[in-house]
Parts: sequence; C-alpha cells; structure tokens
Amino acid sequence: MLSNIITSEYIQRALTEDLGPSAQDISADLCVPADMHANLKLNSRASGVIAGLGFVTRTFEMVDMTCQVQLLAQDGDIIEPGQCLATVQGPARSLLMAERTALNFITHLSGIATLTAQHVKAVQGTQAKIMDTRKTLPGLRAAQKYAVTCGGGVNHRFGLYDAVMIKDNHIALAGGIQSALDRVCSKAGHTIKIEVEVDTLDQLDEVLAHGGADIVLLDNMDIPTLGEAVSRAKGKIVTEASGGVTLKTVRAIAETGVDYISVGALTHSAPYFDIGLDDA
Amino acid sequence: MLSNIITSEYIQRALTEDLGPSAQDISADLCVPADMHANLKLNSRASGVIAGLGFVTRTFEMVDMTCQVQLLAQDGDIIEPGQCLATVQGPARSLLMAERTALNFITHLSGIATLTAQHVKAVQGTQAKIMDTRKTLPGLRAAQKYAVTCGGGVNHRFGLYDAVMIKDNHIALAGGIQSALDRVCSKAGHTIKIEVEVDTLDQLDEVLAHGGADIVLLDNMDIPTLGEAVSRAKGKIVTEASGGVTLKTVRAIAETGVDYISVGALTHSAPYFDIGLDDA
Amino acid sequence: MLSNIITSEYIQRALTEDLGPSAQDISADLCVPADMHANLKLNSRASGVIAGLGFVTRTFEMVDMTCQVQLLAQDGDIIEPGQCLATVQGPARSLLMAERTALNFITHLSGIATLTAQHVKAVQGTQAKIMDTRKTLPGLRAAQKYAVTCGGGVNHRFGLYDAVMIKDNHIALAGGIQSALDRVCSKAGHTIKIEVEVDTLDQLDEVLAHGGADIVLLDNMDIPTLGEAVSRAKGKIVTEASGGVTLKTVRAIAETGVDYISVGALTHSAPYFDIGLDDA
Amino acid sequence: MLSNIITSEYIQRALTEDLGPSAQDISADLCVPADMHANLKLNSRASGVIAGLGFVTRTFEMVDMTCQVQLLAQDGDIIEPGQCLATVQGPARSLLMAERTALNFITHLSGIATLTAQHVKAVQGTQAKIMDTRKTLPGLRAAQKYAVTCGGGVNHRFGLYDAVMIKDNHIALAGGIQSALDRVCSKAGHTIKIEVEVDTLDQLDEVLAHGGADIVLLDNMDIPTLGEAVSRAKGKIVTEASGGVTLKTVRAIAETGVDYISVGALTHSAPYFDIGLDDA
Amino acid sequence: MLSNIITSEYIQRALTEDLGPSAQDISADLCVPADMHANLKLNSRASGVIAGLGFVTRTFEMVDMTCQVQLLAQDGDIIEPGQCLATVQGPARSLLMAERTALNFITHLSGIATLTAQHVKAVQGTQAKIMDTRKTLPGLRAAQKYAVTCGGGVNHRFGLYDAVMIKDNHIALAGGIQSALDRVCSKAGHTIKIEVEVDTLDQLDEVLAHGGADIVLLDNMDIPTLGEAVSRAKGKIVTEASGGVTLKTVRAIAETGVDYISVGALTHSAPYFDIGLDDA
Amino acid sequence: MLSNIITSEYIQRALTEDLGPSAQDISADLCVPADMHANLKLNSRASGVIAGLGFVTRTFEMVDMTCQVQLLAQDGDIIEPGQCLATVQGPARSLLMAERTALNFITHLSGIATLTAQHVKAVQGTQAKIMDTRKTLPGLRAAQKYAVTCGGGVNHRFGLYDAVMIKDNHIALAGGIQSALDRVCSKAGHTIKIEVEVDTLDQLDEVLAHGGADIVLLDNMDIPTLGEAVSRAKGKIVTEASGGVTLKTVRAIAETGVDYISVGALTHSAPYFDIGLDDA
Repeated sequence: MLSNIITSEYIQRALTEDLGPSAQDISADLCVPADMHANLKLNSRASGVIAGLGFVTRTFEMVDMTCQVQLLAQDGDIIEPGQCLATVQGPARSLLMAERTALNFITHLSGIATLTAQHVKAVQGTQAKIMDTRKTLPGLRAAQKYAVTCGGGVNHRFGLYDAVMIKDNHIALAGGIQSALDRVCSKAGHTIKIEVEVDTLDQLDEVLAHGGADIVLLDNMDIPTLGEAVSRAKGKIVTEASGGVTLKTVRAIAETGVDYISVGALTHSAPYFDIGLDDA
Repeated sequence: MLSNIITSEYIQRALTEDLGPSAQDISADLCVPADMHANLKLNSRASGVIAGLGFVTRTFEMVDMTCQVQLLAQDGDIIEPGQCLATVQGPARSLLMAERTALNFITHLSGIATLTAQHVKAVQGTQAKIMDTRKTLPGLRAAQKYAVTCGGGVNHRFGLYDAVMIKDNHIALAGGIQSALDRVCSKAGHTIKIEVEVDTLDQLDEVLAHGGADIVLLDNMDIPTLGEAVSRAKGKIVTEASGGVTLKTVRAIAETGVDYISVGALTHSAPYFDIGLDDA
Repeated sequence: MLSNIITSEYIQRALTEDLGPSAQDISADLCVPADMHANLKLNSRASGVIAGLGFVTRTFEMVDMTCQVQLLAQDGDIIEPGQCLATVQGPARSLLMAERTALNFITHLSGIATLTAQHVKAVQGTQAKIMDTRKTLPGLRAAQKYAVTCGGGVNHRFGLYDAVMIKDNHIALAGGIQSALDRVCSKAGHTIKIEVEVDTLDQLDEVLAHGGADIVLLDNMDIPTLGEAVSRAKGKIVTEASGGVTLKTVRAIAETGVDYISVGALTHSAPYFDIGLDDA
Repeated sequence: MLSNIITSEYIQRALTEDLGPSAQDISADLCVPADMHANLKLNSRASGVIAGLGFVTRTFEMVDMTCQVQLLAQDGDIIEPGQCLATVQGPARSLLMAERTALNFITHLSGIATLTAQHVKAVQGTQAKIMDTRKTLPGLRAAQKYAVTCGGGVNHRFGLYDAVMIKDNHIALAGGIQSALDRVCSKAGHTIKIEVEVDTLDQLDEVLAHGGADIVLLDNMDIPTLGEAVSRAKGKIVTEASGGVTLKTVRAIAETGVDYISVGALTHSAPYFDIGLDDA
Repeated sequence: MLSNIITSEYIQRALTEDLGPSAQDISADLCVPADMHANLKLNSRASGVIAGLGFVTRTFEMVDMTCQVQLLAQDGDIIEPGQCLATVQGPARSLLMAERTALNFITHLSGIATLTAQHVKAVQGTQAKIMDTRKTLPGLRAAQKYAVTCGGGVNHRFGLYDAVMIKDNHIALAGGIQSALDRVCSKAGHTIKIEVEVDTLDQLDEVLAHGGADIVLLDNMDIPTLGEAVSRAKGKIVTEASGGVTLKTVRAIAETGVDYISVGALTHSAPYFDIGLDDA
Repeated sequence: MLSNIITSEYIQRALTEDLGPSAQDISADLCVPADMHANLKLNSRASGVIAGLGFVTRTFEMVDMTCQVQLLAQDGDIIEPGQCLATVQGPARSLLMAERTALNFITHLSGIATLTAQHVKAVQGTQAKIMDTRKTLPGLRAAQKYAVTCGGGVNHRFGLYDAVMIKDNHIALAGGIQSALDRVCSKAGHTIKIEVEVDTLDQLDEVLAHGGADIVLLDNMDIPTLGEAVSRAKGKIVTEASGGVTLKTVRAIAETGVDYISVGALTHSAPYFDIGLDDA
C-alpha cells in the first residue's frame, strides 16, 4: 500500500493544477446550489487490473472531509466492464471538484497495472519476473511503480540512490568493465547491490570473471545470444534482460531462462484504463 | 514557450524522485572519477514531432550550472530517426546524474506532440482543430498541454478555473439545461466562456434556444447525428465533438464540419517517443 | 465559498509570519496558565458587509483543533456596529495565539466587501456591474476577489492565464489593433475571451470593425466620450469602463449604459473594517 | 534593505497567482512576436515617498534573467508626479508578464511609506516616533514593516515571538496586572522586552509600582488623561500611545510628550500610490 | 509547549528523509502481514530529563492516524533507567515505519535537556541562570531551544531578528563600542534589547559609560577578571558570561555573581539519551 | 561530494530559522554601514578531519551572490589548530548575516568526520570498516552521512527504502527468522539486499541455514560470542557488529574479524569541532 504521506502530496499537486490560484470550480459554483448532495458510482468501462483506489478516497477527502467513499474492490483485483468499484457521496460541488483529479489517477495507474498483468501472463510458466525501469513519467514514479506491483510485477531500483547500475557510459568513462567493477566494489557500502549492463557475451564473461557484481543486465541481445548468456551465467549471477520487450517478444525472452525482464513501456507508454463516475 | 518558472518546478520534483533524500547518483560517484568530462549527443530514434527541448537544457543546468547544452532543433520541428537534437557537455558525473530525468521529459512530451500531429494531419483540409482535454496525467498538465501545441493542437481549458463547462452531472443537479444556463449566465464574469455538453439533438436545441452558451460540446454522437447537430448549430454557436475519437475515426468526425475535436488520448495515452543520449 | 485548500495555505503563511521560526506566542506562554480556557466574541465595530468568516474558523482550528468557533453571520451579510459575528472558545493560549491572524483576515476582507457594496449601491438602477481588477495586493488575490463577490461585485479575470486582455503596450508591439486582433484570433483556444483596451473612439471603431473581440475596455474616457462609445458599441460588443473610478464618479459612468465598471481601488486601497475579539 | 531571500519568496508567490498553473501570459504570447524587445519607464504619478524598488528589479529578473532594470531613485526618496524611477528593458513578452506584479508591490509599499511620512511630518518637533503594529495584511508583514521604515517610521515587534505584550485579555486571564507581570518577569529571557497595555491611570500606577515592565502602552486615552499618564511615567518607563490615531489627532497625542505612537492604519489601510510603466 | 505547527513540519522533513521518494518501509512491507497490530513501550535506558514526548505522539499520528500513543510522563520530568514513558499501539507496519524517526527526536532532545539540567544543578544556590546560544544544529533550533527550557535553562535570542548583539566584528566595523552603540540606540525599535560583547574591563567601562546597552556579554574572561567585571556592572546592566563553559568550570563562573551563563555545548554537543521502543 | 541540490535546501532552512520572517539581521543593519566590505578567515581551532566546506561556500553565496569564498582545504583533509581553511570577502552586512549558519554546518559535520576518523584509526590493521546508522539527527541525515565518508567511514542504508533490515520486532511479528526470511526473499526485488539482526548464535545458525540473507547484524554480543559468530559466518555471509561500540571497545570488536562495525554515536553524539571566522 502506498502511504498517505505520498498520496496526499501527489493529490495536492494535481488539485492545484486543476483548481488554479483561486481554488475554484467555477462551473459547479455557478451551476449547482451550495446545499445539494449527490451520490456517484465509480464504474469500470474495461477489463483489467485496478490500481490506485487509495487515490480516489484521498482525493475526495482532501477536497472535502465530509465526502464519503466506500470501496467495493481493492488494488490488484481483476475487474470487468460495468463493475462498480466504489460509491461516493457528499456535497455535489465537492464531488464535481474532485471528480477529474480522482479519475486521472485511477485510470492511469490501472492502465499500468493492466499492461503489467498482460506481460506477467505472457510469461506464465517460466521463471521470469516482469520488472519496471526508471523510464517513468516525471513526478509520478512512486505511484507508477506501485501500480506495477498491483499488476504482479516487481520493482527495479527506484532511483540513482538505491542500487548501482553500471551502464555503457560508466564503463567507457571508468576505462572498461574490470576497472569499473574494481572502483565500485572497493567503495560501495555492504547494503548496495551492483548490476552491470552488457551487450555481448565477451562482456558477460568479463563480468563473471570479476565476480564482484550481483546482477547482469543483458541488453538488446537476440534470443539465441540471450539463451547462451543465460546458460553461461546460471548459478553464478542473477540475470536480467532488457531492450525491445513487447507483449509479442516477451515470451521468447522468458523462455531463455532469464530471471528478470525489465520493460520500460509499463511506465512510459501504458494506455489509460477507462473508468467513469456515474450518477448513482 | 513554457516559462522557466514552471519548467524549474517540474524538474526539481523529477530530480528529487530520482536522487532521493541523499541527492546521490551512487553509480556515477563510485564509478567515474570526479574530474572527468564527457560529451553526449541527444539523438532521435524515431520520426515525429519534438517537444520539450527546454526541459533538457534546464535539467542539465539545474544539476550542474557548468553543463552546456546546445540545441540543434526546436520544439515543433519534425524530426527523423538518427537526427541529432542537441549536444551536451560537462562533468561526466553531472551528465550521468541528469540524463534519465532529461530523457523522461522529452520522450514523453515528444510522444504527445507526435500523436497530436498525427491527428492534425488526419483532419487536414477540414476546418476542424484538434484539442486536448483535462484528462491529463497528474502533475504534468501544463507540460502536456504545451506539447499538444507543439504538435499543432489547440488547448482546451486548463482547469476548473478558466472556463465554464456544464456537463451531464451539472445539468442533472441544476434541474435541466435551461436552469443550468440561467444560473450560470446571471452570475458569470464577462471574461468567462460557457460551454455545454449535450448528448442529443433535443438537448442541442435547448442550448440554441437559450442563447447564453458560447460553445456546445457534442458528446459521443454517431456521425450522422453529429452532422445534423453541426448543421443546426452552424453560425449560432461554436461546436466541439468528443468521445471515441481515434486516428481512425477522427477524419469522419472532422468532415461533419465541426469546429473542434477534443481527444483525451493525446494526454492520457500517448506512447513515448524514443530518444537517447549517446557518446559523442 | 473559498475552498479550504486555499484558506489553509493563506493562513499557514500568515501564522508563520506571526509566530516566527519558534512558533511561539511568548506573551501567552509566559502569562497565561496552560490549562485555562476562554470564551471570546467576535464583535463588529462598524457597519458594512462582512467577508472572510471562513478564515476566522479555519485560523483557530489550525492553531488548535480543540478550538470551537460558532458563526452567527455569513459572508455577504450586512452588519451593524456591536453585532456579534461569532463566538470562539478553547484553550486561552490558543485563542490568544490565533486572534490577530484571524482578525487581520476578516478586517481586510470585510473592508473590501464593504467598499464594493458602496460602489454597487451607487450604481443601483443602472445596468452596470462593479468589477475588480488585477491590481490586488501580492499574495492575496484569491481572497480579495472572493471578498469583492461578497460585496456584490463581479470578478474580472484572475490572472494572465484565464482571458486575453490587449492593452496599449500590446497594441504598440503588435503594430496596431487590427494586427493584434488578427494574431490573437487566429491562435486563441475557443474557451478564451478576448478583450481590447481603447482610449479613443477611433480605436473603438477599429475594434468594432474587426469583429474578433468579445469585450472592449473603454479606458479613461470623459463621460460624453464614454457615452458616445457605449452607444456605438451597444449590441455589438460587451463594454467595460475603467480609469478614475471613485464613489463620486461611478454613478455618472454607470449612467452611460456601460455594462461593467472595473475599480482598482476595491482591492488596492480598501480601508480595513473594524472588528474585535472581546471577552465573552 | 530587505534581503533577497525574502523578496524572492514574496515575488514567487505573487507571480504564481498571476500566472496560474500554466505559467502563461496568454495575451503576450498570442499578441507579441517572441523576438521583440521593449523599453519601459517606471513613472510616478503622485507625490510621496517611494518604497519597494528592490521588488521591481527582482520581479523582472525572476521572470527573465535577461531583463535589465536601472533604478533612478532609492527607497525612502521623496518623489514627484512624472518623476522617472527606473528604466526597464528586455524581451517584450517578459516585460509584459512581470509588469503588473512589479507594480502591485511598489504601489502598495509606496502607499505605506507615504502615509507613514505624513504621520512623521505631523509630529515633527515633538519627541514622538511613529510606529507600526501587528495589524498587517496577511502574508505581507515583513514588506509592509520595511515600507514603514522607508517613510521614517519605527518598527514595533514583528510578531508574537520577539517581545512580550501583555494586553487586556492576558491581564484578565492571569488575574491582574501584578500577577501577569510576576509570571512574565520570573520566566522571560534577558533579551526579551516586556510591554503592558493599560487603559486607565490606576492601571498605569500598578505597572509603575511593579517595576518589571520596559514599556507601557497607553491605549485609547483622551488627550488630558494621556498627558497625565505621560507625566507620571516620565523617566520611569518608555511610553507608547495607541487607539484612534489619525492624521488629525496624531499631533495632539505627540504633544503630550509620549515616546511612541503606534498606528494600525499605516499597514491595514494605506491607499495605493499611483505608479505606472510607460513606453520609453 | 511546542506548537503542533512546528512539530509537524520537523517530523514531515524527518519522515521524508527516512522514507525516500517512495515513502516505503520495504522491510515492514515485505516481512509483516498488513493486518497485524502491535503494542510497544517507550522505555528509558538512562537517567536524566525527558524532552520531546510531543514529537513521539505526533510522529506516530502523522504516519498513521489510527496509531494511539499514551504518554506516561511529561517533558521536563526526571526519569530513571527502565521507566516506561509511553505506550504505543496500532498497525504493526505503521509502528515500525515511525519508530526510528520518533526515537531520533526524543533521544536527541532529552540529551539536551539532561545536559542542561546538569549545568543548572551545578550552579544551584547561585543566582546564575543557564542559557543556550545560536550555536544550534541546522534546522533544529526551535526544538533544541525548547529542550533547553525542559532542562531548566533559559533561551537566549532565537536568531538575528529578535535582539541586537554587538560582537567584536560589529565593533570593529562600526569604529568602536561608542560608535556602535550610538548607531544602534538611535535607530532600534523600543521592543529590541541591546547586548554588547566585551573581552576586557576597559571595554566594559566603555559600555557602562555609554548607558545605552541592556546587557553586557563578558566573553572568555578568567574568573578574577570576570568577578571584577560583575562587580563593576552590578546594578547598572545585566551580565552574561560565555566562553569555555563546561560542567567543571560553570560553578566558579556562577559564583562571580554573573546573571546568566550561555553554553554552546547544550545544543552543539549534547550526547544522545538512550531510549528504546520495546515489545509490550 | 554532496550535490548543490541538497546543500541549498539545508541552508535555506537554516537561514530561515536564523533570519525569521523578516529576514533581518538587526544587529548588522543597525550597526554597520551598508557600503562596508570585510575580509574574514575561516580558522580551525582544533585538530581533526574537516567536512562541510561546500556548505560554507554556498551559505555565503545564498545570502549574497557577491560574497567570495576561497577554499584552502578540502573535505576529508586532516587539519590542525590555527590552520586557515578559507577566506571570505564581501559586503560586511552579508558576511555577518551568513557567519553563524555557515559555522553551524562546518563545526557539526567536522565533528562527525573527526569522530569517525578516530574510530577508523582505532581499527587500523584489521579488516573491519566503520559504518554509520539511521540514528541521525532529524533533518540532517544526508549531510551527516556525507561527513561520515569524509572521516573514512562507510554508509549503511540511508533509510527504510534502500535495503531490508529484519530486526527483532520484525522477526517476532513474522513468526520467527525462517518465516521472516521466506516472506522477504519471495517478494523482494533483485536490487535489494537483505540483512538480519541476531542476538544469539542459535539465531545466527538459523540465518545461515536459510541462506537467503546477504548480511547478518550481530547485535550486542560479548567479544567471545562475537568471535564465535564471525567464525561460523566467515565465507557464508557478510558480518556486521553493533551495540555498545565506543572508542575503547571498537578495537576488540574489530579483532574478531567482523566485516563492518556500525556506530550510532558517529551521528547522534558527535561533539562539535571548533572553527571560527576571524578578522583577516
């Protein structure tokens, strides 16, 4: 579950951009009497996996503490079109003010959870786990990575601060894989995992020979090369595949026996999941 | 052009989530000597419309004032795979620290600009203009709406504060279209435009009869109904179509003669546009 | 009604400047035992229109959730000297800590509401509506504009973002009224209203001839010229007068038949409205 | 001089409310070509004392670092109608974006400085000094109090944190003047001054008898009573008068020999001072 | 008591650095079932004076409103090893998430209170009061100064804004003590106390001769010189000693008759006070 | 090196608490002419390891961009009493305003670096590395952990987000070590290291038998038990010792062959390191 500490901050920012410096919903204020109440239903209009219900509850509460949201599903549930996910009641103006912000969260996050679940299903029966990347939309990382877990995925590192990833640029600047790993291993704290990105089998052999890395990222390899890489690495280092992963290619990648497959599209290109708020 | 006031705030937030409370890139700090410099090229790997170059420049500057970014393209340009969009030079650690954040902005915004341009091209020759909606990703609205204009689109209202939109829920709560319009017209300031959403021709007639609205939103109508609606409205009120708009359907919608077509997918479902930072 | 989202932010800032980095009321802490309770009455000491009672309630709550405020009036009410507007009870130290901040809001906003109501009354019987401007005190705009509506006024645009206003400088830079209007009309979104400021009847004729503007601001015209302008514009464009508007001149301006009169003094020069918190 | 630390924060807030979440000046963006430059003059349209020129410079810089402001006067100067206070040049769109915010600061602060100077002049030849109060407009206190000093006034305490003020409510809650002073004197730090508000000569005598207070505030006394109070207090305690102070009454109050006269109107009711930005 | 306004801000910052951008306690989330509850006891493991219990309560509430903290002691109490200071119950994950942050506050602040109390005890029977300084840890001043009062100390000025302190650098820049005092006395508001730092008896005589200062800071004097200084100052000005104050030297300093002794170590070098959260 | 992104935020907060809402140094403003310049030297008054020079530079720059700081040492240097660490020049008022804030950073951080270096030296010749903990002072963690590295120490995890630490409470709640490790290992991402705290050799055997943990924390063991634990663990898991570590005990702990020793006192109880700013 995402902590309220973080959902509140996300929602505050989203409300601020929808309400402007005047914090006004001029349509509702002009159109709807101040004392009207309303009942709305949050209905799914697609099938997939839901994520972000906590944002719905918190958005209505932040706009107006007297709004009441009753959830009828929970994050990670598989849902069908027409299914009611929650009921919302409260002052009509408050409901109208909060509606779009709440929907923008849940439709985006459920889109990510659903796309993740499709990848997870595609590799079912293999040992591969589906992961996200740092290719997230600016300012939304924690929420997007949470949605990946709702869809059955696993989180890669959250940022530049919680794991070492030695990529092609690092290797070039450090003067080669061995030199890069030497530098890192001699100085890293004992709580930090070290991952190295390689493009070729030769590079993989260098990583294996060094012994200091925890994970090897096999980047953009064709299936036969990837298969060979995985068998060389088996038992010696955790393997991760990345590059060109789609719902069409993911199964073949998984069948090489690789441990993890990281998919940028989960967070940078997930289409939204249609959900609406209807009159109850 | 987006003001630095807003790009700085977006980038600060994105850097914060990538750097964590320690503001550290542990990979670069451990791997790369402190005094190394590097030169990188920002290369397109797809064809489309670029948006967000200002975010690239500002991200490198915010991480390190000594980084230098030279832009070789400008927002709104049509670009091809392999085209170099900018060169970046500076301390290697700073470039590595800023890289992913800069890319996350430009790949997302160029994805939106490109999707918008595809819609604009699809309606070429008609009078219809392509618009965005408030279905934006939380915390990214101003940047996303800016990207829509780079792709040749037009911005709808930015939030609940800058135009009146009377939707189905407002109409129900106010007791009908006429009552809703009466309430709004008697109280709205003279700088506020008034738009009403209608689902049927009968509702359209009610709006036209009232005379107080500036724009009518023709929501989810099939093409013949939409065509009839547009011809009834012509010369009396500005028309906008919405609902189920895709690259496949948008041309037929535009050919009804409607003035504006609003497309939620521009901002809620644009796939990213592949751009990378390569060794120069 | 102003949303709690905005009142909380205003009050937080005001409390911060009254309490300093130590968040201390040293007088109350040293002088008053920690366990004392008190009852206070919010009493008017003048006659006019009240605005900002929500700030009073929220200020006491933010200082101490156990304070209880019972409102005996509502924003927009006409009040008399000696009238009790609210009772407040709670821990004595908390009441003392919140007192001045609460009063600073309500005395300023009621001053604006009262000055607005005086202008509204002065034009009674004409069709002119009284408006505010962007000449607001820095950081207080949303609250000040809310107070204007409590006094019976209408809000002009809130900022640079919610309507186009073409002023003398814009016209000069764009190369004339026609050129400015051409530029704006070809690019503005359909939800944006366009207003043009003119100083002379010739300029007015240019605006009318162009046809693209929604509103004309007749700036600093003497009464006969203004009257002529209004009659030329009647039925073609909404008219607004500004410049040198005082309680003495506003009636004559209104009697020209102009639709709106904007008055900077409402927000930049309203004297405060005397209200005090007395022992109950 | 106000530190840039504080002016930047004030201006950021003011720009945010003028620019909205999109940080856009839609009028300038649509109307004025991106590459135009302009020269403006900041001209006084009234006579009085100027305050807040630093806000003007900083506002233009914050909107666009390439704007150049040359000041031709300094805070505290007496200025005349038509006098040019500064020249401003830079990109035309940037100047238009910053203009109103810069003016809102300087017109308000110069209004305060001018009103203060009028009070200072009214008491010339007496020993009385003119002071402000905590009756400031929310969020503007430091700027307003700075403006008071530009007009020749002296600052009272800034908030609840930098001096003890024992008022009627404190006295009642503490069980009388002596008890209140005993409590405060036994616990206050040695850097804190102690002021007591009294309404009557008997209360004054109690304060004098106790000996622990540094200042006595003689509140709302008529001139003969005030005169008597001042002569009783002379040489024993610093005296301050407050209540009902206007430009008409302030001279008589000063002539009682009181040390300080505090005037709420300086900050809660100062009319603005007319200054404009004209084409150079 | 510290206001919730300030404790909330401190705790928010501390939680942010412990939880990171993802606001996650990955240990608790992975390890502990979501529906488990727990009971913990806050136990002292040392003897001294407790300070900061309000931070404990507020930290658990901010992490999770359903946590319940029952305090069994209050700030300023003398406590013994093994003494239970509070019980905490709530969802196990929430308790684990908040634990370290709560402890980091109370162990640091109780360390300060205890060190202060040791100094206070060391001067018992003299008239000297123990004070803090501005040598506080960045970002913690208000909490640290509050802890000093819990230990029986008195607060010196909070910052550069609430009292004048003329130090060696000021004197040099102003051209001597007399010139510095002349400048300050002619311009300072009546609520501001003036303190001058002196190193020698000659400087002290200058301060006494001038008569404008309220307090003299006798800096780094040996005991005989300090004793002479105190006797020269007695009855004319408040005296404060500083420099090289330790638990070993403070008694001798106090016995000179000085009024106040300021001790930087209270806030810059207090060791922590051991307190733990144990299974109840 | 700490990024400017984080030092700026720390310094902003520290300046805010020293300058208050008015951002004023009243002593300097009243005492020192506005146009005076000054030269200061940052001199060490103790011997040890310096840390935080970047804070000094940035503090003076943030107060006034025209201040110039020239560093004569760098973080991690061993310094002696009387050694000049930097020269500072600029407007005298600005230097006085920034002085205490700059000193509060560098004296605290150098205190931590020095205490760390003392521990590092005490274990010289063994393989043990000295580490910090999460027992940091609220709001100062990143700076404190940076200072530990300046003193030759290694950073443990930064917070709850970047490594799993299974402590006694987790074990109890999860139903034992095996159950806790099973839960964590089945769900943790591949970039996360897993550490388990044990108090006894039996618990250690359980951890070794499971095989899922990366590190074992041997808490509060006496030296013989610790030695036995280390020999059982050697070659199978990384070992860390904690509990009761002081400069007196740390050598014996290190000689058991343990890999890491974590010391809470480095960050919660480091005395300050005396540094002053003197007239140049």
